[in-house]
Amino acid sequence: MADNWIFDVLADLRRFALANDLQALAAQVQATVQVAEQELAARADGKPAPRTGQGGRAFPH
Amino acid sequence: MADNWIFDVLADLRRFALANDLQALAAQVQATVQVAEQELAARADGKPAPRTGQGGRAFPH
Repeated sequence: MADNWIFDVLADLRRFALANDLQALAAQVQATVQVAEQELAARADGKPAPRTGQGGRAFPH
Repeated sequence: MADNWIFDVLADLRRFALANDLQALAAQVQATVQVAEQELAARADGKPAPRTGQGGRAFPH
């Protein structure tokens, strides 16, 4: 999956925050980048990604 | 300043996270929205120093 746009968007947001002296926002965005990295990496390691568009059931019975 | 793009971008990201079962990312993005709201609101107010109580004047006379 092409998830790079997530990091592009977050990098843009962080640049904006730093350029405008929004320190708390910059830090929060940085934390968000790390969460995204971890969660996407964990998913890439196994756990198949639930796909939406076919009923969207995460737990089919 | 038109800061609405920040919230548009974060809303997009949160939608993506929820649609792809990235729960930690969705929560983190939501927290980022709140930080952005607070920090931008504080700046819009002219970044006042934290005040206690009410009245505003420390030394009325």
